[in-house]
Amino acid sequence: MTVFLVGAGPGDPELLTVRGAALLGRADVVVHDRLVARQLLDLAPPTARRIDVGKTPGRPTRQADINALLVEYGRAGRAVVRLKGGDPFVFGRGGEEAEALEAAGVGFEVVPGVTSAFAAPAAAGIPVTHRGLSTSVTVVTGHVGDPSAPDGVDWESLGRAGGTLVVLMGMSERERIAAELMASGRDAATPVAVVHWGTTPDQRVVRTSLAGLAGVDLPAPSAIVIGPVAGLDLRSITGSRYDPAPEG
Amino acid sequence: MTVFLVGAGPGDPELLTVRGAALLGRADVVVHDRLVARQLLDLAPPTARRIDVGKTPGRPTRQADINALLVEYGRAGRAVVRLKGGDPFVFGRGGEEAEALEAAGVGFEVVPGVTSAFAAPAAAGIPVTHRGLSTSVTVVTGHVGDPSAPDGVDWESLGRAGGTLVVLMGMSERERIAAELMASGRDAATPVAVVHWGTTPDQRVVRTSLAGLAGVDLPAPSAIVIGPVAGLDLRSITGSRYDPAPEG
Repeated sequence: MTVFLVGAGPGDPELLTVRGAALLGRADVVVHDRLVARQLLDLAPPTARRIDVGKTPGRPTRQADINALLVEYGRAGRAVVRLKGGDPFVFGRGGEEAEALEAAGVGFEVVPGVTSAFAAPAAAGIPVTHRGLSTSVTVVTGHVGDPSAPDGVDWESLGRAGGTLVVLMGMSERERIAAELMASGRDAATPVAVVHWGTTPDQRVVRTSLAGLAGVDLPAPSAIVIGPVAGLDLRSITGSRYDPAPEG
Repeated sequence: MTVFLVGAGPGDPELLTVRGAALLGRADVVVHDRLVARQLLDLAPPTARRIDVGKTPGRPTRQADINALLVEYGRAGRAVVRLKGGDPFVFGRGGEEAEALEAAGVGFEVVPGVTSAFAAPAAAGIPVTHRGLSTSVTVVTGHVGDPSAPDGVDWESLGRAGGTLVVLMGMSERERIAAELMASGRDAATPVAVVHWGTTPDQRVVRTSLAGLAGVDLPAPSAIVIGPVAGLDLRSITGSRYDPAPEG
């Protein structure tokens, strides 16, 4: 009995791994996030049970319920795929699910996925590292579920450390994040790109600066890329797979 | 005419993306790194030309020659796959290749891959972020090609910023990196895991502390994971895909 914690990748269904596709193809049960592409769910057999445990923004998370569901189906000996956006171990709470399965004595396997933290910028023509511009990249969330809790991120030190910053789930906190980074000494003119739904047909990219970030209005899911690399636009002259027409 | 800059993933051939596999299957030319798995090269048609441009450690890099090769084959209208370990835009110098193709007027597409920076820790049972332990992860290289050049990384600020650090290509600099992080205030007892050839049958994991990092002797490729999450070992009770027996 094994529960597979599978990374669904950033959005484009073809960015699923070969192993993820094979496991979906023989799943009895697929427990999936809200934002997972329909084409991925279609890879499971028609008879497979599909369970949407997507957390609606603003509603309390029920991670404990998801954990219990995985344990229950795992114990019943079903082939369970827990399909999570991006990579299960990068802000995916996969660690908590793995702990719950371990505690319950249920076997599991983590199948890494392409993280949207790097793929969304790439789809917008931005390499998160680039010779001469950035030798490090930090991925951070702007939001940790409970709005009353501090996010635990030392924005001042991160700002001083330089390198590329990718903020996931950060749009609601964008004004505060930009202010904290500028207070730490990051130039207000530092290039910023906001990539909404990167690697999907709904992809939209807005380019601005740290000073302009507060004025960007794009809904979730959006990745905020901060640093000199965000000024690059390495998309092919022949057009991109995701947005053939350059954005305004 | 399009050159595809394809991420080969961390090592396990099944962690290639579905799109990467499809592109390899119809490639005329595969320009690949030294460490790319044989099984991936076998996905290309038997008639495809395979060119190993792997850089041997210690030999001068010839990025300009690789760029010229991609431009040449791209101009000739061949279906070219540039297969790079991990993700092309995460320390993969894919940005430089994209710039060269853009400058030459050759169409290209970046196909993201699973980065070893996150998958190698996962294969060792380590989530790079975990509730209560880490809300950010920074990926950095310890080595930038030219040993006489500074690496441009502000280790002191990174040390202060907290969160998980993953150092790629850092084993030759491990003593200096540990010293700089401890000087910035990171506890000498901070958990550290070194993951050699993560996600492959040759995977080896050594767990230590920041104070003990200098004494770890594992060859490249190895990822160094630094932070409280490196103390986790979320591998299944039923054994891992990569190293069924717990390491000593």
